[in-house]
Amino acid sequence: MTDLATKAQTSPSKKTVLIIGGGFAGINAAKNLAGLDDVQVILVDRRNHHLFQPLLYQVATAGLNPGDIAVPIRSQFSGVDNVEVHMGEVHSIDLSSKRAVLSGDVEVPFHYLILACGAQHSYFAHPEWEEFAPGLKTLEQATEIRRRILSAFEQAENEVQADRQRALMTFLIVGGGPTGVELAGAIADISRTVLQNDFRRVDPAQARVVLVEAGARVLSSFSEGLSRRAEKDLRELGVEVRLGVRVEKLDQEGASLGAERIVAANVFWAAGVQASAMAFVGGSIQKDRAGRIPVGKDCAMKGYPNIFVIGDMAAFETASGEFLPGLAPVAIQAGKFVARTIRKELKGRPRGQFHYVDKGQMATVGKNRAIVEAGRIRIWGRIAWLAWLLIHIFFLIGFKNRISVMAQWAWSYVFSKRGARLITEKDWKLRH
Amino acid sequence: MTDLATKAQTSPSKKTVLIIGGGFAGINAAKNLAGLDDVQVILVDRRNHHLFQPLLYQVATAGLNPGDIAVPIRSQFSGVDNVEVHMGEVHSIDLSSKRAVLSGDVEVPFHYLILACGAQHSYFAHPEWEEFAPGLKTLEQATEIRRRILSAFEQAENEVQADRQRALMTFLIVGGGPTGVELAGAIADISRTVLQNDFRRVDPAQARVVLVEAGARVLSSFSEGLSRRAEKDLRELGVEVRLGVRVEKLDQEGASLGAERIVAANVFWAAGVQASAMAFVGGSIQKDRAGRIPVGKDCAMKGYPNIFVIGDMAAFETASGEFLPGLAPVAIQAGKFVARTIRKELKGRPRGQFHYVDKGQMATVGKNRAIVEAGRIRIWGRIAWLAWLLIHIFFLIGFKNRISVMAQWAWSYVFSKRGARLITEKDWKLRH
Repeated sequence: MTDLATKAQTSPSKKTVLIIGGGFAGINAAKNLAGLDDVQVILVDRRNHHLFQPLLYQVATAGLNPGDIAVPIRSQFSGVDNVEVHMGEVHSIDLSSKRAVLSGDVEVPFHYLILACGAQHSYFAHPEWEEFAPGLKTLEQATEIRRRILSAFEQAENEVQADRQRALMTFLIVGGGPTGVELAGAIADISRTVLQNDFRRVDPAQARVVLVEAGARVLSSFSEGLSRRAEKDLRELGVEVRLGVRVEKLDQEGASLGAERIVAANVFWAAGVQASAMAFVGGSIQKDRAGRIPVGKDCAMKGYPNIFVIGDMAAFETASGEFLPGLAPVAIQAGKFVARTIRKELKGRPRGQFHYVDKGQMATVGKNRAIVEAGRIRIWGRIAWLAWLLIHIFFLIGFKNRISVMAQWAWSYVFSKRGARLITEKDWKLRH
Repeated sequence: MTDLATKAQTSPSKKTVLIIGGGFAGINAAKNLAGLDDVQVILVDRRNHHLFQPLLYQVATAGLNPGDIAVPIRSQFSGVDNVEVHMGEVHSIDLSSKRAVLSGDVEVPFHYLILACGAQHSYFAHPEWEEFAPGLKTLEQATEIRRRILSAFEQAENEVQADRQRALMTFLIVGGGPTGVELAGAIADISRTVLQNDFRRVDPAQARVVLVEAGARVLSSFSEGLSRRAEKDLRELGVEVRLGVRVEKLDQEGASLGAERIVAANVFWAAGVQASAMAFVGGSIQKDRAGRIPVGKDCAMKGYPNIFVIGDMAAFETASGEFLPGLAPVAIQAGKFVARTIRKELKGRPRGQFHYVDKGQMATVGKNRAIVEAGRIRIWGRIAWLAWLLIHIFFLIGFKNRISVMAQWAWSYVFSKRGARLITEKDWKLRH
């Protein structure tokens, strides 16, 4: 076995920090350890890119290119000597001996471990549903959903049987959280604007968009008033909102919601979320029902002070007895906090406690409609949407260092154009 | 069977023009028939997008997003009543009875047929080589090549065996035409600029880029002087140019060029080109060695005055006895010519003859280097590159109707950034 951490070891005064996951949590931890003399960071991710997840639904609905919301992890640490990026898998981690084995049989002894592998969709007890109802967590999934949406209209245009045409133009979204609401809103929106005049045999504006939520209201993390407002916005856009309903069966033809059968060629999954499985961690770890690892106030795993768990895979209980939600701001703040903790500790100073500063939340419902809640401030409608747009443009400019990407997106979004209406096949080979 | 051309038939005075292929030739023919009262156009393509092929190599080398060089065919005819776009396959065409059957069992009787299916790579007698050496004709192939290039550096970074590392960082490009030269130049360029500081264990600048050409010089359609200039530019960029050499064997480990063996994990194919097979056309058609169909001066197939063949699949012999090359300008001009011919004929006027107006050709060799030849004008070096950049920006702005896309690209190109350094997997499903 070869030692990836050679550099770290040659200088015995250096501490190796192994970070698993290049999402918001992991990348912010690494950035706040970059440039330190006494720390060697190894950041592992199976993908080469860090993703701006809040806009993933825009890729799925042809508003943004995959490249617009992704940056190479490696390029974030270009020229930063003490951060190494390892694209690959983690084979195993031994928590007690503090050694990890990465793909390529690379062995890494570490002083600190930061687990930040995020979450993925959970199909509850039905993994076979994924085939019929892709989720939206990765660029590949976003491209697949885009392919399905655009292909559905193309197939409907060529279809002669009315019932089949109807099924092709029916979109069922499972889950009324931000992703489900944004996806449903965007599909309803593009079918009534961008695609409107492009077909001759079908009217995209007649597309049926159904949003199913098992709970009593959509966007349940918002206050009831805003949540009802979002529901009203969705209905005005033409989305059928079904509350208190569960998907009981899902197959190639559609879904069964209790006694009701919805025939839909397109089903997308935005329901359950589960922390990444981390089969690579040896020994038994305590996990909650969602697969998350309980952590202390310092974000460390109980019993393992040098092993931090942050982001969507952490179960962090606040003073009020609630668990921090799986949101980008929580992950970002936790990443920074853990980096600060390590820096402090290396200087012999005691650890602090992580306090998440909630700056508010927002969700958009199609174009021109959004809801914003920050403390007692509650905004909705067009003003909320402009606030949403501005804040996302602002973040994405920082993310991509590209004003032009965002200028382009804002422009086409405001004027209902879609720049990325691409159907790409899964197979790259020639078709004769 | 259902009749897609219903509209055309209900008005007996309308003539149906069936166009197969939404490339430069087909789309220009359709655009020049759009809006006519007496013509119904049906444009068939198996893809939903029209591609700006001259910049495909930029997608393959992470300089442009797939969406930047593609537009939905359908959106080009948004609101144009007499043009219908059918995304799908052609099952069969009976030339004598003038009937086509499209996917979905849609039967189309036509008055005019325009065959514009383009060309694809030819692996000569070795179709099994495709697996090891993807070509560059579609967006899917471009994304696959991008994935392979970027993954190669990632794998090399994790590789401990020196010979394997060397193989991973060896790029062999087969074919010294514009695509091969541009691809080789771009790979050499990014490995020495964009990727330079992002790795710790390998030096991307040490990547070996080999360009193999069976003929006596690269870019043989240019004058000898410019062609030698391009070769010099390639060598200065660090590309090994091998002339008069043929690939005799190609497998997972690399290629054999005569007695020499080049161990390369990355082989890309830019050699032979062959007209699309058109297995759907019934009866025997005369074809030349490259699979092209000989046409007369009016671009019609011999013996079939109402069947035009244009673009890369046409063998059009000029007055000087040469065949028109498979270039975008030829396809565009032929598309316009055929549309004009049909318009004339419907007014009872005689057909003219197609004359290709050669406005010159250009090719770029990495950054800051290009060659331009227009009549007696011959330019090279940085001025030629700026001319190349300006002309492509100009065309792409017209193509995408997006100044921002091109502004962004020009900016990042000039400053050696790459906005689309994405490795995306072929499978969209979750990986636990």
